[in-house]
Amino acid sequence: MPRLPRQPPAWWRFSHIGNSANIAVPSRSRSLSFRSGKGSGRGPAPTTGRPGLSFSSLRGTTQPELSRRLFKLIKSENNLVTAHETAGRERIFIATQLSEWGEQTGDDAVSDLSDKVGVILSELGEQEEAYAHALDDSRAVLKAIRNTEKSVQPSRDNKAKITDDIHRLKTKEPQSAKLVVLEQELIRAEAENLVAEAQLTNMTRQKLKEAYDAEFLATIERAEKQIILAKHGRRLLNLLDDSPVVPGDTRAAYEHGGQARQILNDAEDDLRDWRPSSEPLGAEEVSSPTKTTSKEESLQEPLQEEPATESAAEAAGALPGEEGTRTTEVAG
Amino acid sequence: MPRLPRQPPAWWRFSHIGNSANIAVPSRSRSLSFRSGKGSGRGPAPTTGRPGLSFSSLRGTTQPELSRRLFKLIKSENNLVTAHETAGRERIFIATQLSEWGEQTGDDAVSDLSDKVGVILSELGEQEEAYAHALDDSRAVLKAIRNTEKSVQPSRDNKAKITDDIHRLKTKEPQSAKLVVLEQELIRAEAENLVAEAQLTNMTRQKLKEAYDAEFLATIERAEKQIILAKHGRRLLNLLDDSPVVPGDTRAAYEHGGQARQILNDAEDDLRDWRPSSEPLGAEEVSSPTKTTSKEESLQEPLQEEPATESAAEAAGALPGEEGTRTTEVAG
Repeated sequence: MPRLPRQPPAWWRFSHIGNSANIAVPSRSRSLSFRSGKGSGRGPAPTTGRPGLSFSSLRGTTQPELSRRLFKLIKSENNLVTAHETAGRERIFIATQLSEWGEQTGDDAVSDLSDKVGVILSELGEQEEAYAHALDDSRAVLKAIRNTEKSVQPSRDNKAKITDDIHRLKTKEPQSAKLVVLEQELIRAEAENLVAEAQLTNMTRQKLKEAYDAEFLATIERAEKQIILAKHGRRLLNLLDDSPVVPGDTRAAYEHGGQARQILNDAEDDLRDWRPSSEPLGAEEVSSPTKTTSKEESLQEPLQEEPATESAAEAAGALPGEEGTRTTEVAG
Repeated sequence: MPRLPRQPPAWWRFSHIGNSANIAVPSRSRSLSFRSGKGSGRGPAPTTGRPGLSFSSLRGTTQPELSRRLFKLIKSENNLVTAHETAGRERIFIATQLSEWGEQTGDDAVSDLSDKVGVILSELGEQEEAYAHALDDSRAVLKAIRNTEKSVQPSRDNKAKITDDIHRLKTKEPQSAKLVVLEQELIRAEAENLVAEAQLTNMTRQKLKEAYDAEFLATIERAEKQIILAKHGRRLLNLLDDSPVVPGDTRAAYEHGGQARQILNDAEDDLRDWRPSSEPLGAEEVSSPTKTTSKEESLQEPLQEEPATESAAEAAGALPGEEGTRTTEVAG
């Protein structure tokens, strides 16, 4: 029975990568690839099933090989989320401290403007916290890939095991009747694995795209809102007359309370009126290297995903693949 | 001898704020002031000289009253800096992990694009780290205010002490010859204090403005650069064909390596070509509440500071203050 050409099993390639000598110390030079020199600085995952023990990685070591890298990445994403949450909270706390400090200076201008700058800082902190939540959502999407990797591992292992059994039996007893049974098992295992690998590649591509598109959109949103806030913050600071006084002189009275209040209103309005940019990324755009247009465009909606249309596996054999009609780019 | 009208000593107002009952739990409602309801959640600093002991605040408790709030704020800024540094580092680490994971999937498109998305993420991390450094610089500027507050405290204490001595002596021995000496001391102390207070208010306004203007400028820079990176990141993701495959089908070969490389080049070029926005904030702009213009403007240079022109104190008496000629706004 003819068999489909198969890709080398992924774990075989994995072990080669793991033993490769070209994982270097991270450098800060701007390169176009991580694999041309940057490395994680942490060693590659062990290629045998025998991991080193450490409390922080005990759960990781019970992960199958296939899902181990993503498991660790998801853990790192958690640290990233926590860092941004902390930054947000600290900023909000600082805002209050600034306001209270300003009030006790006894200087009307400093008192009023430090309070209002504090409001701006507090909003910056809220944006940071919202960003942390968005990163966490993106992290959850990556988990779908990891879970699928984890569930596909047994299917790969099974296929490999039966293949080994067949080889061993062919060497020892080439005429054994058991070979026929094993070969039937192998076909079933391959069919199951075919479906599993298709599910894995579909899930991987869809969720990778979804997770990082969401992360980039959240980055853009935080940035645009923080630009709004920071610009109004600078307008507030511009109301602060920092020309030095001669000892004994009284300063001119502070008369910008109304303007300051208005600036905060402006900031609040601008934030409320913020909308994601709405220009979709067209297919023709992707191919042209025009930089100016690329600066202007961005997607309002997340990149579109076509609905999954996985059909049931054909257990008895393989169907010839359909070629040529699938588009290679997703139009925004 | 006529004395200048004096502001109530700042620590007197400080104690009132400290004992006020209106420091509430922080609320998330968007208010235009911290003093209308938001509070720090942490108790006010003690108003006597006797602080509570705790290891984390031992150094803070040796600060004079005047500089204590700013001392704590500067400490919080340090936590903020650390959080952003951590976020930057984690992001760079995740970038490497993503690239390594993508390579071991055995999927050409995922392998190439995860590597290049990793480059984008790594640059996002670098921006975050640069932001942390800028926040640290801003924090250093605030220290100048705190140090001046700390150095002015003795001058205030001295003036208060002599004033108390005079009152006590007047009650006990109204005819004492020592009164004349004390009153001369008081005049000298007041003169010194006059200079100190002028130095403090000048330093406070200048450095407050400088520190937070730098912080807002850094926020805008990080945001604008991260928008550039995130938009190119989305272009990369758009090259990933996530239309599902039927089990048994081979995917169309990945043909976007060149485009992906070009996108990274675009990103690198756009980052390199980034410049701060160059429109100064004019005086007339500050007074008009036009929101659309306010969205567009931003300052290229830090807000201008007029050179300090503090003249020496007049020890023998006070000069009448000069009014009217000082502008109340600094033109950008």
